[in-house]
Formats: sequence, C-alpha cells, structure tokens
Amino acid sequence: MSLMPPHAALPVARVTPKGARSLRHFNPWVYRTEIAAPPDVKGAGAVVLVVDSQGNPIGQALYARRSPLALRLLTRKGPAEEPVDDAFFRRRLEAALARRAYLSGRDGLRLVHGEADQLPGLFVDRYGKGLTLQTLSEGMDARKETLAKMLVELTGATHVMCRDDASGRDFEGLPREARLLHGEGAARFTYHEGENRFEVDLQGDMKTGAFLDQVDNHLRAGELARGDALDLFSYHGGFALSLSRTCTSVLAVEQDEKAAARAKANAEANGRANVTVENANAFDVLRRFDTSGRRFDTVVLDPPGLAKRREGLATALRAYHELNLRAFRCLKPDGLLVTCSCSGKLDRAAFEEMVLAAAADAKRPVQILERRGAGLDHPVLAGLPETEYLKALYVRAL
Amino acid sequence: MSLMPPHAALPVARVTPKGARSLRHFNPWVYRTEIAAPPDVKGAGAVVLVVDSQGNPIGQALYARRSPLALRLLTRKGPAEEPVDDAFFRRRLEAALARRAYLSGRDGLRLVHGEADQLPGLFVDRYGKGLTLQTLSEGMDARKETLAKMLVELTGATHVMCRDDASGRDFEGLPREARLLHGEGAARFTYHEGENRFEVDLQGDMKTGAFLDQVDNHLRAGELARGDALDLFSYHGGFALSLSRTCTSVLAVEQDEKAAARAKANAEANGRANVTVENANAFDVLRRFDTSGRRFDTVVLDPPGLAKRREGLATALRAYHELNLRAFRCLKPDGLLVTCSCSGKLDRAAFEEMVLAAAADAKRPVQILERRGAGLDHPVLAGLPETEYLKALYVRAL
Repeated sequence: MSLMPPHAALPVARVTPKGARSLRHFNPWVYRTEIAAPPDVKGAGAVVLVVDSQGNPIGQALYARRSPLALRLLTRKGPAEEPVDDAFFRRRLEAALARRAYLSGRDGLRLVHGEADQLPGLFVDRYGKGLTLQTLSEGMDARKETLAKMLVELTGATHVMCRDDASGRDFEGLPREARLLHGEGAARFTYHEGENRFEVDLQGDMKTGAFLDQVDNHLRAGELARGDALDLFSYHGGFALSLSRTCTSVLAVEQDEKAAARAKANAEANGRANVTVENANAFDVLRRFDTSGRRFDTVVLDPPGLAKRREGLATALRAYHELNLRAFRCLKPDGLLVTCSCSGKLDRAAFEEMVLAAAADAKRPVQILERRGAGLDHPVLAGLPETEYLKALYVRAL
Repeated sequence: MSLMPPHAALPVARVTPKGARSLRHFNPWVYRTEIAAPPDVKGAGAVVLVVDSQGNPIGQALYARRSPLALRLLTRKGPAEEPVDDAFFRRRLEAALARRAYLSGRDGLRLVHGEADQLPGLFVDRYGKGLTLQTLSEGMDARKETLAKMLVELTGATHVMCRDDASGRDFEGLPREARLLHGEGAARFTYHEGENRFEVDLQGDMKTGAFLDQVDNHLRAGELARGDALDLFSYHGGFALSLSRTCTSVLAVEQDEKAAARAKANAEANGRANVTVENANAFDVLRRFDTSGRRFDTVVLDPPGLAKRREGLATALRAYHELNLRAFRCLKPDGLLVTCSCSGKLDRAAFEEMVLAAAADAKRPVQILERRGAGLDHPVLAGLPETEYLKALYVRAL
C-alpha cells in the first residue's frame, strides 16, 4: 500500500491487533469488538481507512454503524492508489461478470457472490433478463440504486428486483424491503437448468429466487443417476427434473404444499411424465419405505438448513444422521446417494463423518465418488469459512 | 452372516480385538500384527474364514503369506452363503464394469479399482481394446490368469498385459514381472481424453499406462482455463492438450526427456499448434518467470508424489509450498491455478492448508472453485484413507 497522501480525507477506523491479524490473513471481516477506535462517520455506508494499532494503513473498508460486523474490507490499497468511487464498484462488477464468462450459455446464475467477488455483502442473481439484488451490508445497501443502474448497463437486464426481505438483514440492523429498482410491470422470467425450463416471479413469494447454488449439483446428479429415483425435499423440482432425464422414474417428495404444486407444474411444463410429486414429509416417507421394503437406485437428500444455530448442531446432526441412515437403507445394491447440507454451522468434515457413520450403521460399504459444493458462480473465499455453507457428497452404497 | 455349515473346510484366521474392530468399521485390511492365530494354509492366495477372538465369524478374506498386509476382506458373508469361487470373482468384475456404464463413451479408463470395487489388490485399466492388469495382493496374483480370461470374455479385449513390475509388489513379497496374459504381437493402442487422441504401448516403458486417474481433471481444467497457460510436470501432455482447446497458448514443461518428446509428438499428432513443450525442471522455470515477470492466465501444477514416505513429509511440504507460491506469483489477476498432489501421505486438509498458505504468502486473495480427486472410475473406499491419494484444487487468485 502506498503512503497516505496528506490530503486523504477518509475517516479512520483503528482495529485491535487481533482484528489486524485477521485482516492480514485474508479474512475481510472485522467485528465491532475488534475496533479499537471507531471512525467518525455520519452517513450510511461510509468508506473508511483501516489502520492497525501503530497507525499503519491496512486498506479501505465499508463501515456499518449498527451491524456487529463493523468493517468489510474492500481493498488493501490506499485512497490515493485506488479511490473507492463509482468507477471502483463498476470495475469490481465487471470483474465478477468476466469471471463467469465460461457460463455464458447459462441464463440462470449468480453474477455477484459478495465477499468472494470482493463486493462484500452484495449478491446478484440473473434469471434471463431479470436480476435480483440483495444487500447484506450497510455499505452496499446505501449504494443499491447506483449498483442497479450499473448492472443494467453491464448486462442489459430489463428488471432489477431488490430482495432485501430476508432475515439476514435483521443482523445487519437494516430494514427488510422488496421493491423494483429498475423496470416496470410484471417481473416474471424463465431460466434453464440444462434442458429443463423453470419460471420465476421475482416479485413473488420466493426468497432469493431458485436455489441457483444447487444448479450444478442438479445437473451432475442427473448425469450419474439411473433406475428408480427418490428426491427428498424437492422444492420446485430442480433435482427431480434433472434426474428424470436418465432415470426410469422419479418420486419427488416436498412438504410445502405450494412448492410441491410448483414442482408438479414444472414437471408437466417440461413433459417429464416419469416424475411423480408427493406432498409429504421426507422423514415419514423414508420410514414408510424402510418398513415396506421399497428400494431405489438413486436417492437425493437436499434438506433445508437443519443447523441454523450452533446450539442446535447436536440436534441437527441427529436429524441428518436419521435421514442419511434411512436413505442408505432404501438404496438397492450399488445405489447412488447424493446427500447435501446447506447448514453453515456444520463443516465439511463433520458432515462427511455423519454420512459415513450413517453408512456404517446401515452396514453398507461406500464408495466416495465426488465431493462438491455450490456451483462455480458461488465461489468460496479462502479465509472466510462462512462462504462455504453448501456441501454435497456423491456416494455409492455397495 | 449365516451359521457355518459343518462341512465348511476353509482355513481359519483369528484376528485380535483391534483387527476385528477395524474390519467392522469398513477397513478391509488386517495387518499381520493384528493376527492372533494365523490360518493353516499352504498354497498361494488362499481364501480364509476370519473370526474374532470369541470365534465369531467376520467374513472371508484373501490371506497373504509374506505381505505385512496379511488379510484383505472379500465379503462379510460366510462360505455357505457366498462361496469364493470363480463365479464370485466374475460377479465382482461384472459389478465393477456395470458401475462404469455411464462412462461407456470413454475408451481409456480404469475398469477395476481394487478395494473400492471389492476386488482387493486388483487394478485393471482399459485402453481401447487393450487391458492392463496389476495385482498387488498374493490372492489376486495367484488368480491373474483366470481373471484375465474372464476380463477378455466380459470386455472383448484383444490383449491383456500384466504390469506387475511396480515397486508396490516388493512390499507384498511378490516378484516383479510384466508379460502378456492374453493376445499376440504388439500391444499398441490408442485412447481418447475428450477429443484428444493418445497412443500407448502396453509393453513399453510406461509403468501403469497413462495417468487415467487424472483424465477428468485434464478435461475439467480445459473447460475452465483461458489465455496463456503454463502446464508444469506435463508428462505426456494430458493437461496441456486439454488446455490447448480453450487457451491461446500452452507452455508444457517436463523434465524427463522421453516424456517431453512424447508430449511434443502428442501435440503434433493432435494438431495442437499452440502447445510448446520445454524439456526443463519446473522449479527452475518458475524461478525464471518469477524473476523475468512473465505471467500466465492459467497455471497447472501436477508434480509427481513428493511425499512418498511420512518421514519426508516436512521436506515435501516445503517443495509443494515453493511450487505453489511461485505459481501464484506467476498468475495474472483473476488467474486460474489447478494444483494437484498425488502423495498419499499428504492428506487433503494439509494439502489445502499448504496451498492457501502459499496464496497468502503471495499476497493473493483466493476463490476456491472446486475440490476434486481422481476420476469416478477411481473411487475412494470410505474407511480406507489409503485409497484417497489424489487431490486437485481449482482456485482463482484475485
């Protein structure tokens, strides 16, 4: 970082030695407890100069006045070398889009993945010509009109829908809201997962659109699956429709009535006659098949986050174990299990240990075929384990 | 397991409580130190009944008279329920082939992967109509003529070449040999990695054929790479030729003169005019570029096993770290690094830690894109960490 010029007028945030060490180890977050001297800022989303306890500059960050996560590092360069202005954010957006150039054939994908794209707290998804934008930092929240305008220019989107109505906003001390930042009229779009077509209403009841982080897993499972398949927690059918290409039959189980109806509609719209949707509880269904002896060649387990809080981890692990144990028991010899967890509190090692313990309890030797995570449009930032929430394990039970 | 019928005539091997526990936790190996009472066997590769210290049957195993690895479990069933005869081995071969049905478009792949395919110590690779067979257990060694005959029937291969000339045989107390088990005349074949065509001479100087375990990584790297690419330790060009499809230029570096010549010949035969092969040491080349400032959009690091023995792990880690550090320094902003390790002694966690430490030392924030291993035709057996030797990490250095 260059020496600070005398005219630098950025507010200064001094961090503790622990905060400085963390920033220097590529964790871009500083919690309020690691702030030694807060910056003197008034407006929302200010950019501040971060210095260590000796006053050495570390970089520039977004400051949040209310969030426990006080600082989110933007750059290790100083304001003279790299001013954080509109051009800065535009360059970062362009870089995020350029990284996804090899996904240009795709019309449903994440364009900006927050910290991992060096745009902390900003998440942008694309569905055809429609974008959703989520801000989970005060700094991005304060800039969302500008960011939406830039995104329209860079992508040619007709609509940008702000979906700042998720619970993550409460943690940041930001109000929940959902509104169109750009475009007029209905914001209904279609996107594809492989050859399957899905409809989304960006203003509708979905939280953050489809589960775009699972698209690569939907497609991969479809490549490896065969025979009779059981898809548990199927939501609107992402796995089920992909499985239906290579499987004889697919039974999709979804507890939420609306989601089950949508899965059914999606299967019909895509002419997937071998998909049956059952509106039921996955645990109940597994128990029923365990007893009745119905067996499958392929089982997909993609439960919602069962371990939202660390205190609930032991309980969640028991639930995950039961699901996986019963899934193994419902698999024919040489059957494929695709098992996922999106619980950020359950790390990859603990997740794998649970799956393999379930296999041992089911007395099934297991081949580990692949370890996967979210798709390439949702990269993990090294140094920030919070960005690695999604685990998928592909195993064959012998 | 069913009760033993009175006429069961298998020799009995009694294992220690520790050995029994390990077998019951899905590790199929029992070392000689865990044998409480050895079986009374005379010939090579006998099948024995394994019992615990109370005499309870655990399953049937191959017994090796000289290897430190005395028992390799074949089945948890008893000889009455599942006799280990020719039909048994044939069923196991058929199952291994069936598991690879989705790779039917491929003419270069592993057909049998030892323990993970429940055929302990047997490894079979396919190159077009030619097979190589390796046995790393006395039991499979004693049966290799029979196994070769079955494989010819099941696959239609014209040649089966026994490549029992690798160092792993010494550990098992088995002599090294290489000979044709089936077929006549030259055993030269071609196989494909994607659209690239490679020649192999099964009787030639290759050890176990090409590095089929890396084929999926060759292809994946080719999908994600772009711009100017540097391929280090390129052997006969598997990565380089795949990269050449999507990259502007590929510089392939290989220290072994013969391998470099073959890489060059392969590039020419496939019309890959943008591939340059340099017969040089990878460390030297990286140091040269580090100093000269030459930078790449994509770097592939696929060194030979640098940590063959645990005592050499610290030294190996230093070498890996230097390679990865310099690779990061040679990457342009947003460049892709595909970094591999085939050292079984270096586990995945330690490997990743080393790569990310190298990134931090190079002062590059890093996106983790994918964690991969050997291809699906080389599955890992849960419970036997020795089967997970190959790690590949795909990262983008911002």
